[in-house]
Parts: sequence; structure tokens; C-alpha cells
Amino acid sequence: MTERYGCQHDCSNCTASYCIDDDKPHEECGVFAIHNHKAAAEMTYLGLYALQHRGQESSGIVTSNGENLYHHRDMGLVSDVFADQGMFNYLMGKNAIGHNRYSTTGSSKISNVQPLLAADREGPMAIGHNGNLTNTRELHRKLLKNGAIFQTTLDSEVITHLIAMSEKETLGERIIDALSQVQGAYCLVILTRAKVIAARDPYGFRPLCLGKVDDSWVVASESCALDIIGAEYVRDVKPGEIIVIDDDGLRSYEPFEKKRKAFCIFEYIYFSRPDSIIFGECVDKARRKIGRTLAKEFPVDADIVISVPDSSNTAALGYARASGIPYEIGLIRNHYIGRTFIHPSQVTREAKVRIKFNPIRGVLEGKRVVVVDDSIVRGTTFRKITELLKEAGATEIHLRVSSPPITSACYYGMDFPDKDDLLATKEKTLEGIRKKLKVNTLGYLSLDGLLASVPQNGNSYCDACFSGNYPAAIPSDPSKDCIEDSNSIGRLIDARSLRYK
Amino acid sequence: MTERYGCQHDCSNCTASYCIDDDKPHEECGVFAIHNHKAAAEMTYLGLYALQHRGQESSGIVTSNGENLYHHRDMGLVSDVFADQGMFNYLMGKNAIGHNRYSTTGSSKISNVQPLLAADREGPMAIGHNGNLTNTRELHRKLLKNGAIFQTTLDSEVITHLIAMSEKETLGERIIDALSQVQGAYCLVILTRAKVIAARDPYGFRPLCLGKVDDSWVVASESCALDIIGAEYVRDVKPGEIIVIDDDGLRSYEPFEKKRKAFCIFEYIYFSRPDSIIFGECVDKARRKIGRTLAKEFPVDADIVISVPDSSNTAALGYARASGIPYEIGLIRNHYIGRTFIHPSQVTREAKVRIKFNPIRGVLEGKRVVVVDDSIVRGTTFRKITELLKEAGATEIHLRVSSPPITSACYYGMDFPDKDDLLATKEKTLEGIRKKLKVNTLGYLSLDGLLASVPQNGNSYCDACFSGNYPAAIPSDPSKDCIEDSNSIGRLIDARSLRYK
Amino acid sequence: MTERYGCQHDCSNCTASYCIDDDKPHEECGVFAIHNHKAAAEMTYLGLYALQHRGQESSGIVTSNGENLYHHRDMGLVSDVFADQGMFNYLMGKNAIGHNRYSTTGSSKISNVQPLLAADREGPMAIGHNGNLTNTRELHRKLLKNGAIFQTTLDSEVITHLIAMSEKETLGERIIDALSQVQGAYCLVILTRAKVIAARDPYGFRPLCLGKVDDSWVVASESCALDIIGAEYVRDVKPGEIIVIDDDGLRSYEPFEKKRKAFCIFEYIYFSRPDSIIFGECVDKARRKIGRTLAKEFPVDADIVISVPDSSNTAALGYARASGIPYEIGLIRNHYIGRTFIHPSQVTREAKVRIKFNPIRGVLEGKRVVVVDDSIVRGTTFRKITELLKEAGATEIHLRVSSPPITSACYYGMDFPDKDDLLATKEKTLEGIRKKLKVNTLGYLSLDGLLASVPQNGNSYCDACFSGNYPAAIPSDPSKDCIEDSNSIGRLIDARSLRYK
Amino acid sequence: MTERYGCQHDCSNCTASYCIDDDKPHEECGVFAIHNHKAAAEMTYLGLYALQHRGQESSGIVTSNGENLYHHRDMGLVSDVFADQGMFNYLMGKNAIGHNRYSTTGSSKISNVQPLLAADREGPMAIGHNGNLTNTRELHRKLLKNGAIFQTTLDSEVITHLIAMSEKETLGERIIDALSQVQGAYCLVILTRAKVIAARDPYGFRPLCLGKVDDSWVVASESCALDIIGAEYVRDVKPGEIIVIDDDGLRSYEPFEKKRKAFCIFEYIYFSRPDSIIFGECVDKARRKIGRTLAKEFPVDADIVISVPDSSNTAALGYARASGIPYEIGLIRNHYIGRTFIHPSQVTREAKVRIKFNPIRGVLEGKRVVVVDDSIVRGTTFRKITELLKEAGATEIHLRVSSPPITSACYYGMDFPDKDDLLATKEKTLEGIRKKLKVNTLGYLSLDGLLASVPQNGNSYCDACFSGNYPAAIPSDPSKDCIEDSNSIGRLIDARSLRYK
Repeated sequence: MTERYGCQHDCSNCTASYCIDDDKPHEECGVFAIHNHKAAAEMTYLGLYALQHRGQESSGIVTSNGENLYHHRDMGLVSDVFADQGMFNYLMGKNAIGHNRYSTTGSSKISNVQPLLAADREGPMAIGHNGNLTNTRELHRKLLKNGAIFQTTLDSEVITHLIAMSEKETLGERIIDALSQVQGAYCLVILTRAKVIAARDPYGFRPLCLGKVDDSWVVASESCALDIIGAEYVRDVKPGEIIVIDDDGLRSYEPFEKKRKAFCIFEYIYFSRPDSIIFGECVDKARRKIGRTLAKEFPVDADIVISVPDSSNTAALGYARASGIPYEIGLIRNHYIGRTFIHPSQVTREAKVRIKFNPIRGVLEGKRVVVVDDSIVRGTTFRKITELLKEAGATEIHLRVSSPPITSACYYGMDFPDKDDLLATKEKTLEGIRKKLKVNTLGYLSLDGLLASVPQNGNSYCDACFSGNYPAAIPSDPSKDCIEDSNSIGRLIDARSLRYK
Repeated sequence: MTERYGCQHDCSNCTASYCIDDDKPHEECGVFAIHNHKAAAEMTYLGLYALQHRGQESSGIVTSNGENLYHHRDMGLVSDVFADQGMFNYLMGKNAIGHNRYSTTGSSKISNVQPLLAADREGPMAIGHNGNLTNTRELHRKLLKNGAIFQTTLDSEVITHLIAMSEKETLGERIIDALSQVQGAYCLVILTRAKVIAARDPYGFRPLCLGKVDDSWVVASESCALDIIGAEYVRDVKPGEIIVIDDDGLRSYEPFEKKRKAFCIFEYIYFSRPDSIIFGECVDKARRKIGRTLAKEFPVDADIVISVPDSSNTAALGYARASGIPYEIGLIRNHYIGRTFIHPSQVTREAKVRIKFNPIRGVLEGKRVVVVDDSIVRGTTFRKITELLKEAGATEIHLRVSSPPITSACYYGMDFPDKDDLLATKEKTLEGIRKKLKVNTLGYLSLDGLLASVPQNGNSYCDACFSGNYPAAIPSDPSKDCIEDSNSIGRLIDARSLRYK
Repeated sequence: MTERYGCQHDCSNCTASYCIDDDKPHEECGVFAIHNHKAAAEMTYLGLYALQHRGQESSGIVTSNGENLYHHRDMGLVSDVFADQGMFNYLMGKNAIGHNRYSTTGSSKISNVQPLLAADREGPMAIGHNGNLTNTRELHRKLLKNGAIFQTTLDSEVITHLIAMSEKETLGERIIDALSQVQGAYCLVILTRAKVIAARDPYGFRPLCLGKVDDSWVVASESCALDIIGAEYVRDVKPGEIIVIDDDGLRSYEPFEKKRKAFCIFEYIYFSRPDSIIFGECVDKARRKIGRTLAKEFPVDADIVISVPDSSNTAALGYARASGIPYEIGLIRNHYIGRTFIHPSQVTREAKVRIKFNPIRGVLEGKRVVVVDDSIVRGTTFRKITELLKEAGATEIHLRVSSPPITSACYYGMDFPDKDDLLATKEKTLEGIRKKLKVNTLGYLSLDGLLASVPQNGNSYCDACFSGNYPAAIPSDPSKDCIEDSNSIGRLIDARSLRYK
Repeated sequence: MTERYGCQHDCSNCTASYCIDDDKPHEECGVFAIHNHKAAAEMTYLGLYALQHRGQESSGIVTSNGENLYHHRDMGLVSDVFADQGMFNYLMGKNAIGHNRYSTTGSSKISNVQPLLAADREGPMAIGHNGNLTNTRELHRKLLKNGAIFQTTLDSEVITHLIAMSEKETLGERIIDALSQVQGAYCLVILTRAKVIAARDPYGFRPLCLGKVDDSWVVASESCALDIIGAEYVRDVKPGEIIVIDDDGLRSYEPFEKKRKAFCIFEYIYFSRPDSIIFGECVDKARRKIGRTLAKEFPVDADIVISVPDSSNTAALGYARASGIPYEIGLIRNHYIGRTFIHPSQVTREAKVRIKFNPIRGVLEGKRVVVVDDSIVRGTTFRKITELLKEAGATEIHLRVSSPPITSACYYGMDFPDKDDLLATKEKTLEGIRKKLKVNTLGYLSLDGLLASVPQNGNSYCDACFSGNYPAAIPSDPSKDCIEDSNSIGRLIDARSLRYK
């Protein structure tokens, strides 16, 4: 419904670099913030680089030197946006926030690049947002009525307007006032001239952690962004917590009513990096346990276990260990994808999957193969992987999916295709899916198995995409829940975005 | 005070292409609008091209197809910004507005490129503004207090907020409401989904004319933009007039109290193209009369009359004709300046003026030369021209300036240097100026002579830069009258603008 | 026949910046060289900038620091190619040559950018060439037979191969050996690690002058390139002279048989800058005399004299002075053309000339107008100028052309269209031309009048384009005289040149 | 000795994308050719994409339509160089060759991009070369003496000159004549207007295979480039074989004296993709056997086996399987590296390795870890990996290298640092190396073990980098064996390559 940068027409076959796994849900964003570091912009750059997997469409850094805010933001990978080293000399100051974006709401366009910038009565401000609000439409209308002018089609922009229009006195109070009006999922990093602020919604849908390096506080979506700069993981930002960091130190606020935690279980299945700690536990550990549970639920007599690299590697290792079947590398993934990868017109659709994956005949020939994949969205890619494996001599293919069938939309920050394009809703039965994917046997991890495999230490999870049980309000008209669709009054369209899409 | 794109440090010696006459006041902007033309974007492109002299920093076009607004805007000359022909396919619709900008308020940066875009409760809107408001600071503060978020540092942005926040019902009423609050100089073109609107301030500081081609109404800063598309000049937009054009035709409103006209006399002296009709008269005709008056006021016994090309050519012809001294081309101006022209570090300051002007020895050698220049701001360039002419063999140099000494700032849209840098305020006496410029005799056109030379048909003029008589309110604190200086709360700075300035 | 960068389809209406006068012959190239200057590259940059009118397609500088040669060359105007100031730090050394190119032979493509580079047995060498060889085809074939590999389609490349393959001992002897084999027009600047060499063909078709600034010798196509760096004009490089400059000073050689001089008379008519001294005389002076002669040959009763700016300004002044009819500026030329100027598809062919020229009604209305143009090639542009002038109210138009009708091709470095496209060959009679151009009267300067107007001090001229009298050999098959056409063995084609033409 | 694009100063810490494994030998090049395919350029693009690992500096495709040759070549990854889909429309014709380059001889610069282009007496020709000649210096001097002009500093250019200067009649004979004069390693693809030619040196240092898809013959460095376009692997091009493909079909020539085969054993260890068949065997299979042999030679009591991803994955699996110690993923490699990755100045050298590798604490903590790495060149990277693993909690680190110590230079196409920078020559003893790398135990695969693990079917190998036994002549003065060093007569240097390195 909304344009996607480069993915518009054939997402299931897209192999563009930013579309890292085409038959997967797409992550929304990664955020980073640092206070009081002499190389604040450079540390943010490294942090965003470590969080690249959470958003490949655009990237931006905003810094503050106490007086002004300095920003550099553009479409592209972190390494492309910041390819000019000299730029860091002009991202001045000791405080910084950064953002990687994959669009969930709002079109892909340069004006939607985050962090969002705004100058209100207290001065310049920048906001980075990971998540998805669910009452954007109502807030947008109300704000327009009050005379607000919108510059982007991001749900995040309603937050800046709510802050600017709040009649409270202090910035802290105005942020609380604003956040008390929004519903849905958010992890925010906010930069003003003097402060770095982080906030997580009361459900805690998305991960956000706090770290420290020397005298600098750091906030990041995942702990891998702390590791890369040598920062120590301190703790998670709590659901509903607002952290304000300035020269007086760090202060924590929990102004909102407590909610039942609803951590996104897909972060453990697929989104987060295996070397990150999120929701209080190492992702690798959870993912390995998921693989073991999958082996117990769906054992099979086979010769080798392989994964669909790289995101399923850990679950496949767990499956192999638990089942006793040897783990092998049967598919090579091509990582030499630059900023863009074009598909010459003469390339058949079948050939496209070969560009990303090449099977190793020596490993597969004559083998009964268990293939572990972490999730199946449309099934279009996997169907072609099946063909590749068979051509390379695999005699049997046993697909084991380390998550349950995806049957419901996500309104809290994941980007799925329309329900009608989900394999598990199109095919009514498991047998239908099995036939569609042309595999010998098929096993999806059960929801109970999944919930039993992820960390239990007081956590509770959002599993709405599998169960349809939404822990929080969903949009009144989900099909129109973004600013560009919230009214019938036309849009501002950058001709460039049409010209070069 | 404000950064200038590339001109920051040595404006008097700058030869960059956008800095067409470095020892001249800088023009502010050119605007263009067209309604109901099947090639609206392309016509606007041509119109902006004809108005290039009014602003070389950035350019932009916004179109409407009745449903959405499509925009393309960037830093650079019109021909650079629209170098990609394919872009026109995506600037859809039959209505369009365009804008060339030379910054008067607001820094030179991409976010300040016009037309300004905004989406308010009635939908998307674009505004192009030529002129300079004088109560920006007060309006900016009031708007911030009401919760407005500013995205640019343009005085023009207050207009969009005033429209958005107006509580009137119709767009027309809201525009009137907004304009009734602003003071200063403005010619506006406004595009909404269904309407093209033009407005000129009650004093009429800047020119704005109305034209027609086939069934399309056209609005432009100068009539040369009508000529290039084959449109017919109909009349000037009247001071204080608001023109609304939509599918129901053209409607004119004059909602404001009448003021004494205050047409910028510098438009006749230097800014406007000689082939334009402005303020009801052909510029060439006025400029030629100015030259004749100058000859009468300051006759001299000399061999040839030359001009400082190209802006002084017409006045020089007028002088030559009235004085009977032959007109000659004694200075060649180099027009092959691309997007950028760099000065190698080894180039002496003296050499820089040679890059722009080369004297013709065969014309000048042994001659007593009258040089006609239309205006002198700092005098830095002219002093070097004097040297060039002498080296080429001129025996006497008689400078005749076709305007009075510039002694006061302009708050209505011209960009002068600080008062302290104006030659006519630094040097107390004419004799001091003459010595500084190293000329044999010097004559500045008198203010009375100037006023007698420009068209009289009911017009009255603003001559504040010569006389200090300001026809309208000036800013309460002129040194801080732009958004970026209007508060002490910091600025949003694009690191790119620092990196590549 | 050969591709032209951007001009392929409709040269007569082209207004691209590099196509400065579309209805004119195109100049070929400008060359510059400097020895022993601490800022050799920067001086060359300025020299090329002053010579921009001689070639707008590409530009290049090569320097030597005695050890290596350093080069930077690209498509575009001088100011674009050298827009990055930092580049000068890497163009090391005290000796340099530079070249501006407009293609006469060889396609427009990056591999044809000059100066040409080569490394032969004596080390690296660079050559810049202005002119056109007439026995390219024969030499090319012979060199191929001897095992030469060609990298460009430039006639100039045969010179580098002839030097490399010469069996003579010293570089000087090898250059003489090479030049003794080539026929046609050449002004060369050659750079080796230790030497700067300049050479001019025995006929002296193209201008080349020698200058001095401090302890540095300078060579340039026109003296305006000396002026811009403050160098003094010393003398012309003589026809048939080879000048070798190294640390031992300047040495002159005249190894070839003397020929009757055949200076290109079009340099005075149109090509050279009015402020240059070429062939021993100031261009402005010659051009003015040409205008006077034209007035004597073709007097007319009229109100004003105008020129087609800018190249005809001086001749028009000459005409005005001799005729007593007042000189006026009746056409404004738009100089704000950036790197590219596109013609939107909806722009009518009639409108295109308006983009370059706008008539001033106030000057023209009700007037009988003499229009002086320096030359007419196709006549397509002028026909539209006639229309513009009439629309602006001119009652009579009397065209006076300051050169004879062009009826023959040039093989020595000018680029005309095919004979069939020349107005003066298409229309058999003057009356036919007059009707075609829709003017009231028409006068072409006579060849005798032209020859009488240009300097006589021992000069003799090539007037082949008017007379068909070729002073030197012409190609055996003129239609195929460039490397790309000299054989039927296929070409190397840069896909980019097709993609972006 | 030669400049390296971006790697000049600190190669061991470089993480730029083109520098895929910084502590590894660098591969030289990949070649591809296809005959008679309607989408020849697009197939070549895909083939080059599959061969990206063999050269990341530059890429190029040349096509022939029987009449002309069309080329597009540039610095950068395949996906960057061919990011513009429209380019394929201009790479016309059914025959094509392509080349990926990593510089071994000749500087990194645009003029050295391959395929090399030349036009000799038979018409245009393009050559792509994988390998390194060993008598370049002598041939270069001889060719210069004969009048050749060199445009690049590539050893490959001597081949084009030898072909052009050969006095034989047919192209085939001239190629044979040329190749009979060169020594060293080469796999060549040559394109003329009518033919596609492939040649491999008599030792067969580098792999080259022949495939077929429909009616098209395909030649490629590795079979993975056949797989991606769905072509079938037919056989290897034989050492000393020249294959000529034209409309008359494929003809094979073996004109040279037979030599003992000397296949580069490093292709199995590290260079080739695991899914390729080279030298008659699947790389994965050989690499796995190498891992097993390593386990037998250097068993150890440990908890887990991990690899340094991705190149050591297969050997690590082999080690794990043979040793019975579980295979784990303990290091995550970041693949999100765009065209450039800059290291902010504030980033410590220690932090740089984290940008590429992140250890997983959950896997490593408290574990005795076997780390399998395929080769160690300088040891700088691995020393930092040791630190990462220890910080993540590994209690013991047992390094197992799946190749012998590298002690000698390669003259046949691999790029090692100077001998003095090789870890195994700097440290005299294994114990010294062990201490340097800070590992608990260290085992290098024995040369005998290596030779026993690679395929034996009639193959023999070059193991000179381990043994110092060179199977073929080496350069007379190895330190100067490239064109740019072969004489003291200076170089042609692109200022851009200095400016932007």
C-alpha cells in the first residue's frame, strides 16, 4: 500500500542489499544514543553500523554541542551515508542520537529519514523512533485541526507535534504529556541542546538497553551496539520508563500506568543479532533452545541438518545437536551485494534465488536433508530453495521452521505483507503448505514450544502474529493507519522518489 | 550575519556563477505560477530560467494534478536542478508554481529551498516568496508559543504557519488572515491541490505581473518570464491584491487597507532584466533615461564611454547618446562560468578580477574613458577595474554611477553588506570615494535625477537605501531579524552545509 | 557523421552551454603550456579558463615534476573539470600543459579527452593538439600495420605513435621526424618529464603565441590566456617552428620547408576573443575594421544598428560608427546556462531561440534595424531571430554579415555541417537566402573586403571556406578522414557514451 | 610497492569491503566469457557477480555484436559498476567477456581497469587476464624499444602489444606467437569482433573451466559462475590450451610444450568458493578433507570448534567431524559493509576488529575453544580475535590453521605482503608464533598433510608459498616486476588516484 524503496513490485524476489531476507518480516528500525562522549558522532556511527540489520533504508545522526544541533541523514546503508569521514568534523558536540530506518509507516523517501528534526519554543530537537503507533490517524487529525503542519508521513512526527503543542512547562513534562497520548509501540531517543532522553512504551514491545563506557551513558536497541564501542551492558530500559540524561546525570521516570509486558517474540526468532542481549537474555541462547525444541517436536530420520543462512544458523545448530544429525553447510550465501543489485531483464525468476544462494552439491548429493528456516512469510523464496537443493542431489527435504505459522498482521512495528499474501493464510492446511513448498515433511514449531523456549524470567511476550491475540489497542482502521492514508486530502510527493524508484 | 553559500569570506572577489555581480546588491528571489497548462512544469522551468538573475542559489517547482502535489527542489541553477529531463514526467498536473532563491533571510541550505511545502488540515500546500518580512521575529515567537514546529529558518515559513493556524474557514480567508498579520515585502505564489494563488504586499515593493497564454493564467516576477513561454503581458498584480485562480476562473481580492506605493527603485537600476516590463514600464527605457540624466548631471570631456558589462550597458548607451561621446566595448566579460569556479590558492587577489573582466587594449589605449557602472556597494571590484583599465592604456578614467550613493540597509528584500562595509558610508566624502576608486572624476546620479528618470505614471518608489526614508515598518531589532537569530535557543544545522561550504 | 556530445540531432537549435553559438562553425581546441612556474597547474587552469571559448567539451591538465607526469582530464567545462580545488595539490611540478577540446575528429568520449597520454621508451609524454591533420587515414593504416595499438579515435594519436616509433635518437629529432610525416593543421604542446615543447604547422593555420611571466615561458593559443595570468606577450610561435623549453632555456627550431602562410581568417571573424592578439594583431581592431568595411559595402537607410550578441558586438560597433547609425542593444542574451540545459519536450522549436535571445521591444518598436551577424552557417537560428525582432516591433530588418557566404568545408580544424546543410550552398542565390531569412535586405561582406580588413603585415590567410582554395593538401577521402572511419574493422565504443548521450 | 586502493597504510586492519579478508593473501582476478547468447552482457554480469570474491577493486564487461566492441568498466564492486540497468542496452551483441580485478601488478587506478581495450590492424580487441606474468620487465623494454606506447601499468598490456606486433597472419597465430613469449601465470579471455578466445598457461596455475548453456559456450574462472546462469560444467580448460569460439564452433589448440602441472593449491585452501568445482574437484570436498587431516595432525582436548567465518567454515566442520568436538558458531561476521567503510579517527585499533567480528559470549563462556583459520599472513587480525574470544569468556584457545606457514612470495598471481611482514618469517619458531598470537596451542597443517588432502587425480600443485619450490621461472628482479617499476623513466599518474586514495 505504501511505496517501498525498490521493493515495490516483487518483494519476494528482491535481492537488493537492503532487503536482506526477502521472505522474512522486515524489521523497522534501530536507535542509538550517547551522552558526554568526546567522539559522540563516531560512536553513534559504529553503533548504527552494528544495528544495520534493523533498518537498511536510511540512516542519520544528530549531535548537540550544547548550543546547536548538527545533523547528517540520507537514504542508504550506514557505511554509504557516512562514507565521507570529513562529515564527522561537522557533527559537533558530545551528545548524539542515531537511527537506522526500514519504513513501516510512511513512504520511503528522503523527507522521512530519521532522526526527525524540529525546532519548537525550547529550541531544536531530534527524535528517533523504533516501533509503530496505533492511534496515528486520530492524533494526526487532531493536530491538523490545531494548526499543525506536517512535513513527513511518519507516525513519529505526531510525537514531535504533541511535544511542541503540550502546554506543560518543562521538556520532561511535555514529553510525558505527549507520550501519554500515543498508543502502540515505541522506543525513542530524543536529543535536545542539553539532554539525551530515552523512552520505551509501557508494553515494552521493542528492546532497548542501557550501557556505559567510561563516563558516557549509551542507549541502544540491542547490546551488540554497546559491544562495538566497548561499552558495558548495564540493564534494559524498562517498559514505560523515561530516562533523562544531562550534565546532572541520569534520571529515571516511570509516569505511566503499568501494563502487562508484551515483548516481541520475533526479536528472538529472527530480528535481533545472535550476539545481542535483549529482554534480559542472549539471543543466541534463546535461538539455540528454539532449535532444540523444534527437534523434539519434529524429529525425522535424515542424514544432515542445514540452515538457510545466516539467520537460521543458530536454530539449525540447536536442531542438529538435539537430534544427533550432523550439521552441515549446504547453502552458500553471497554477501557481495553493494548498494544496489539490479536484475537484468533477461534473468528468469528462477535464476534470481541463485544470486543469493548456491547449494553445494558435494554436501547435498544423495542426502536426506533437514533444512531449518526461522520463519516463512510468503514461501516464494523457500520454494525455490527446495528446487536448488533437489537439483544439487538432495533426495529428501524436511523443512523445519523455528516459529509457528504467521497468520496475523503486526501493528507494533513489523512489516508483513497483506494477510492475503501470507503463505499460512493462503494455504488452509499444513499439507497444503507442504505441497506448495515441495518438501517431504514439514514442521512448524508450536506456539507453546516457542513460548517454552524463550527466557521466562518474568518476561511475557507479544505473539499476536501467530495467535492473533493483540496485547494492546490496534488501529481503528488498520488499512489506513498512516499519515499518508489518514485523510483524503492529498499528499506531498517528491518527484525524485517517483523518478528513481 | 547569515551564512552565504560560497560567498562567506570574500564576497567582493567572488566570481562564482551564482554571484553574478559581486559588488552589487543581491536580488532575493523570482517567482512563477501557471494554471491550467498541459505542460505546467515545463513552462515553469522556462519561466524560472528567464528569472535566473533574481536568484541563483536554489530552484524548485511544485505541481498539482488536483489530487497530490509533486515537487522537485535543489541547490543550484535552474538548468542544473532540472538537468534530468525525465523529472518532468513526475511533476504531474496542470497547475504549477516555481521559485528561484537567493537567500536574504535564512541560511543557504537545502532545507531552505523554496517553494516551501506543508501539509495542513486542508491538505498539501506550497508557497514561493519573493521579499522580506519585517516582523518575522515577533510572529516566530508567537507561533512557537502556540506549538508550531519550524523546519526552516526562512521568514516565509511563518506564513505557512499563520495559514495553518488561522481559524478562518476557507483557504482564501485563511490566507487573508495570515497576510494581515505579516509586515514587510512579499510577492507570493501559492499552490494547493485545486488553486493557484498570487499575492503582493500593499506597498508593492517587488514586481509581480499577470499574463496569459491560451487558456492559462500565468504569474511571474518579471514579464521576461512571460515572453519565454510566449505568454502575453496582461497587467501587474496590484499592491495589496490577492488573485485566486481555479477552475472557476480568476478572482481578485483587495482586502487590505491601501498604502502609498513603494516600488523598489533598484529594480529599474539593476535587478530586473532590461527586456522586462515592471511597474508598468520597460526596464530598458527607464535605464536608458537614467543614463541620459547622468550625462546631463555629470558631463565630462572624454573620448569614449564604456560600461561595466552587462548590467550597465543600457545606462552607458544612454550616457553616450546624451553626451555625444562614442560608446565602446572596452571590457570583455567572461561568461564561461560553470556551477563552480574555484580560485587556486596561488592566484593573487589582483588577478581575480581578470577572471571576470578583460580589458581591450586596442579600444582603451591612449583614451580618456567614461565608465558607467549602475551601482557601487563596497567598491572593491571597481577599484580593480580601474587598475585593469589603466594597465590597458586608459589615460583618464571618469566614473559615472547611475544611482545615488548607497547609505542605508534594505529590509524589504535586497541583500547589502553591513553598513560598515558600504563604500559610501565608510568614506565620508565624494572626494574620499574618488581617491579610493583611483578615478579622475566621479559622479553619482542624484536622487532627484533618479526619481525624475523612472516612470511617473502614478507610481511612487522606495528609495530607502539612498535616502534612509523607510516607507513601511522596519524590524524592531534589525540585526536579528531572521528566524535563526530571533531567539537564543540554538539552531538545526545540516552538517553538509558546513562540510561543503 | 561522428557523434557529438549532446548535439546529435538538432544542432541548429541546441542551446547547451558547450554549444555556445549554434549557427556558427565550431572551434576545435585551445592549448596552453607553461615551464618553470611554482603554480604551473593553477596557471594552466586559468589559461584554459580564458581559452574556454575554443573548446567546451572536455578539458585536461598534465604536469611534470621532472620525475613523473600527473594528469587530470574530464568531459565538461574547465570550471567543472577542476571544481575540486584539492586536485591541484596532486598536479605536481613546475611544468604543465593544458587543453580544451571541442571535437573535430574523433567522437566525443572520455577516452578522447586531451592532452593525450603515452609512455614510450623515453618515458611518459603528454600531447595537446589544436588543428586537424589531413593524412590521418594513411598514417593510421601504416601505424596499425607496424603493430601500433590505438586507444582513441583522435587524429592526434597518430602523432604520439609516430614519435614513439621514430628511430631517431633524441626526443627533438623524433618529434621532427614525426611532424615531417603529418599533413594539415596543428598547434601542439608537448610535455615530457623534463621538457615543454610547442610546435606549429608550416602553414600556421591556427594561432599560437609565446609569453613570459617572471622566469616562466608560456605558450597559448591566444594572448588572452597570457593576460589572465599576468604574462607578457612576447611573439607568435612561427609557422613551422618547434620550440623546446627546458632547464637550459628556450631553443627554437625551424626544420621544415617554408610554406606560404595560411592563417585561418575565421579566427578574426569569429573564433578568437576580441581582447586577444593573434597573427600579430588585436582581434578587436580587425573585427571593428571588418564592420566598417561592411558598412561601406552595404550601406542602408535605417534607425539603429544592433548585433547578435556577443560575438558580433565589435563588428556591429564598427558598422554603426562607419554608417553613423546609432548602435543599440536590441537583443539580450541569457548567460545563465549551466552545465546542461534541457529542452522540455513540450517546448516548440520556435520557442527555443527565445531561451537564448530576448528582444527589447522598447528599443526595436517601430524601428528600421540593421542586424550585424558575424557569420551564417545553416541560417536556422537567424531565421528565428528575424521573427523575434519583428514580433518586437521592428519594421525593417537589414541583415549585414561580417563574412562572405560559407560554401566549402574546412579540413584544418573548423567544424562545419555537411556542405548540404550550409545555407549558402542550399540556396543558390542571395535573393534566395534573403527570402529564407525573411529579411528586407541582405549583405555579405565580400572576400576582397574581408581580406582588405584583416592585418596585412606580411600575413597571408586561408579563406578556403569562402573560396574553396585550399592552401594545403586535403584528405584523400574527406568523408572518412578520421580514425574511426578510416577502416571497416569496427570500433571500441564506450557504452556510457551511448547511454548518456 | 604498488599503491593499493585504500589499503596503503594499514592493510592488516582494513575492513573496507573490497578488502574482504585482511589477514589473507589477496586474490588477483576473475574472468568470464560467453559466446552466442542473446543476453551476453547480462549473463556476464551474473558470472562476474558470482566471481566477485576473486577481485573487488574494479569490474568490466566488453561485448561484441560482430561489428563493434562495446565496453563498460569502472572501479568498484560488480553491483556498483553495473548499478544502472539501462547500461545493458548499450552493451550490444551476443558475445562478451568480463573481468573482476584485484590488483597484483599495476597500480589501482581507473586506467588499469580490465578488460583491456585495444584497436590494432585487425580491429578492436579486449583482453581479460587472471594471473601474473614473470618476464614483464624484459618484454616491456623490448616493446618500448620497438615503438610501443603503453597506456596502463598492467603486465597484461604486454600481451596486447605482443599480439599487435606479431608478424603472423591470423589472429590465432598471433595469439600463439604472443603467448609463446610470455612466462608466468595466465588465464585469458579475449574478445574480437567475431571470436571469443580463452587461454590458460602451460602450468595451469589458475583455474579456468568451460561450460555450456543452450547453444552458448561459457568460460569462467570457477564453476560457480556457470551455476548462477544455469550453465552446465563441461570440463576444465587444459593447461596450455587455447580455445577459439566463433560461429564455426569451438576449436581447441595446444601449441605449447607440455609442462608439469602446477595448480595453485591456495585456490583449495582459501580463494575459490566452496561451491565451485576447480582443478576437477569440488572445493568444499577438498576443504573438508583438509579440516579432517588437520584434526588428525593436531588433536586437542577441547569443548567446541569454531571457525573464523566465512572462509574457514568448511575446514572447521571437517575438523569438528573428525575430532568429535562439537561445531559451534562463536564469531558473528558483519556483512553489512557497503562500498566504503570508514574508520572514524577516534576508533582505537583494537576496536576495528569488532567491526567485522563479534564473539557470542553465550557460546564461548567457560569453554576450551578450537579455532580453525585457513591461513595466517601477518597475524595481526588473529591476535585481536584471540583477545575478543578471551574477553567473551573462552578459557583456552587452540588455533588450528588449515595450511602450512607461508614463508615465500608468490609470483603467479597472489598478493602477499613483503616477506618481512609475513608472520611465519618474522617469528623464527612455532613457539614464537604461538606467543605472538596469544593462543594456548597452535597447529599448522603440514605440507604433506595438505598435499594428501587435495585431489590426486593426475593433478600436481604449486606450493611455492609454503615450500619455496617455484615450478616456473620467477622474475629476474622480483622487487621490480611490474611495468611501473621496470624502468627509471617516470610514470603517468592520475591525480585523482592520489586525491581520493
